[in-house]
Amino acid sequence: MLSFEVSGSPGNGAGRLGTLTLDHGVVETPAFMPVGTGGTVKAARHRDLEEVGASILLANTYHLMLRPGGDSIRRMGGLHRFIGWDRPILTDSGGFQVMSLATNRTLSEEGVLFRSHVDGSRHLLTPEKAASLQVADFGVDVAMVLDECPPWPASQGELRVSMERTHRWAKRGREEFERVRESGRSAQFGIVQGGMDAGLRAESAAAVSALGFEGVACGGVSVGEPKEMMRATVETTGPLLPGDRPRYLMGVGRPDDLVHAVAHGFDLFDCVLPTRAARHGLLYLPGREEGTLVIKHARYREDLLPPDPECPCSTCRRHSRAYLRHLYVSGEPTAATLMTVHNLHAILDLMRRIREALAEKRFETWAAGFPAPPGLGKDSR
Amino acid sequence: MLSFEVSGSPGNGAGRLGTLTLDHGVVETPAFMPVGTGGTVKAARHRDLEEVGASILLANTYHLMLRPGGDSIRRMGGLHRFIGWDRPILTDSGGFQVMSLATNRTLSEEGVLFRSHVDGSRHLLTPEKAASLQVADFGVDVAMVLDECPPWPASQGELRVSMERTHRWAKRGREEFERVRESGRSAQFGIVQGGMDAGLRAESAAAVSALGFEGVACGGVSVGEPKEMMRATVETTGPLLPGDRPRYLMGVGRPDDLVHAVAHGFDLFDCVLPTRAARHGLLYLPGREEGTLVIKHARYREDLLPPDPECPCSTCRRHSRAYLRHLYVSGEPTAATLMTVHNLHAILDLMRRIREALAEKRFETWAAGFPAPPGLGKDSR
Repeated sequence: MLSFEVSGSPGNGAGRLGTLTLDHGVVETPAFMPVGTGGTVKAARHRDLEEVGASILLANTYHLMLRPGGDSIRRMGGLHRFIGWDRPILTDSGGFQVMSLATNRTLSEEGVLFRSHVDGSRHLLTPEKAASLQVADFGVDVAMVLDECPPWPASQGELRVSMERTHRWAKRGREEFERVRESGRSAQFGIVQGGMDAGLRAESAAAVSALGFEGVACGGVSVGEPKEMMRATVETTGPLLPGDRPRYLMGVGRPDDLVHAVAHGFDLFDCVLPTRAARHGLLYLPGREEGTLVIKHARYREDLLPPDPECPCSTCRRHSRAYLRHLYVSGEPTAATLMTVHNLHAILDLMRRIREALAEKRFETWAAGFPAPPGLGKDSR
Repeated sequence: MLSFEVSGSPGNGAGRLGTLTLDHGVVETPAFMPVGTGGTVKAARHRDLEEVGASILLANTYHLMLRPGGDSIRRMGGLHRFIGWDRPILTDSGGFQVMSLATNRTLSEEGVLFRSHVDGSRHLLTPEKAASLQVADFGVDVAMVLDECPPWPASQGELRVSMERTHRWAKRGREEFERVRESGRSAQFGIVQGGMDAGLRAESAAAVSALGFEGVACGGVSVGEPKEMMRATVETTGPLLPGDRPRYLMGVGRPDDLVHAVAHGFDLFDCVLPTRAARHGLLYLPGREEGTLVIKHARYREDLLPPDPECPCSTCRRHSRAYLRHLYVSGEPTAATLMTVHNLHAILDLMRRIREALAEKRFETWAAGFPAPPGLGKDSR
């Protein structure tokens, strides 16, 4: 990482504007990172992402280490060259996916031994391996340290054991990062855990922040807990993270959750929701009372309005609800593409509106009027 | 149809350049029409089609009459408005799809009674219905008359019975077209049948050409017959079709078959092959000795060359074989999109090279040197 400049907290609250300068470009924060798991956002082309204004892409270490593999990506000159994307990339560390996707997992102090969900092959992911994969093999702009993300609910005892291991792994991951980094090219973010417990969160924030990471993330939210609990953790954790470094809230979220997290000092976000929802026919209308539009509803059968009449995205400029519905019910792959483009535009446009409100010192007022859409319930994930 | 101008046969052979002026734009012939069955080319956006230079889109009456239905399309202002495409559209008549997709078909002199493959509902498609759907409901630039496309092989007797019904249907379809057309907006093409029998083809060409259609098509090829037989029928039928009207070879085909058919006087083509092959990981390299590239082959695992290093399409300009292979083996929908864009560009670029060779009076020499690619065998369909 070259630098992170925070232009203060322009309003009265904790919400802040920032400029994150990375090896492959500049990210204006608060920013949302589209999720491109295996090196592509599902159903979207890179040019679509550029067109809707994505300044940074998130990819998953777990998927890429299994296919095509770290050695292969390194031989091809790194992840940017391999996937043909020249803006910044952040990769997660693989810890979360190992726990949710791999089979036959064995967690030990050393790391996680698991079987690939692709071909059953055995792999060991350690804090050192996660760092060297992301930095030396992938050459990403931002690497995430390997953490252990406990499920929800978990007991206080389980949370503490897991958190303390996460801290030891953070130290090992940071040491490996320092060893393999090329000066000025990559950054590494630490991850704060501690479940929904405020005391553990404070302890974790202190421990992780002390390790010299270029940014600090709040992990372990959006793992199935009730929305109120997630919000409470965001409110607790945000102020605990160093103010001079980017604060990344992992796996969040819905439009109203993004607004809420910005208000509590977070700068970076990622979530599969806008793109996954698109593939299931749920269109985002963030900031509008209705919140979403379920394209398969019969009421859109002959509706010639664009999905969002006020949206300037390439889907809304050209196509009607009736046509998108037709493509969706016909099982046409183009449906996923057109709706993914709209949802990504909607969410990135929301981030632009957030930055604008911050710059104009009216974010708190604007955020207070932002609707919590009823359509974005749990069933839409 | 407003007009069809043939700039003579510029070379020594039957190959010819033409300008087909339709209600929604001009089609330079010889031209290939991408197949957009239900109002979209699978895995491609309309803008992709425009970018690769598609001047006319083919859609299927059968699919559109079932979903969203002719009445619905008419209420929405026609097919162009419904799908958001403002260049010319040609629709087939539904006859071929009724025979290949519908269940419980009953063929009679009146038409075809069938059950929808979508929801089992019963429908009657007659020559009159096919004409009014395409012209009055869809409002397409070119409507195809309803024909009966016999399977291959068929006996001489079966072929004659079928052909004679096709001629009676052609007359009825034409009469309905004349009744419902708005002057100067739509054109209607007749379809010559007769199987692989030269005598029947001659008879059919004479009967269909006499009915005043604005263009004449050769149907009943590419139905499973050996390539040599298809080519013989193209050679027989091409010269039998009126020279002052567009000649459309239905359902063909592979790059070398397109070159062959142009040499025998055909102007228009459609085929699902380039787009279907793309979805199965087969990339076209028309005019190159290797002919095709099977992206899943292990040899492309770390191949950083573009699919076709000489191709200027947006896929080849940005992505490597290694990345496309990765997307394909990972089951990413983007694989289909990127490869569809390349294959359509390749086939439309082939048509541009054909027109250029015709314009420069070197088509016969150029065509003689065009390789018949071994990779485009039957298994790739």
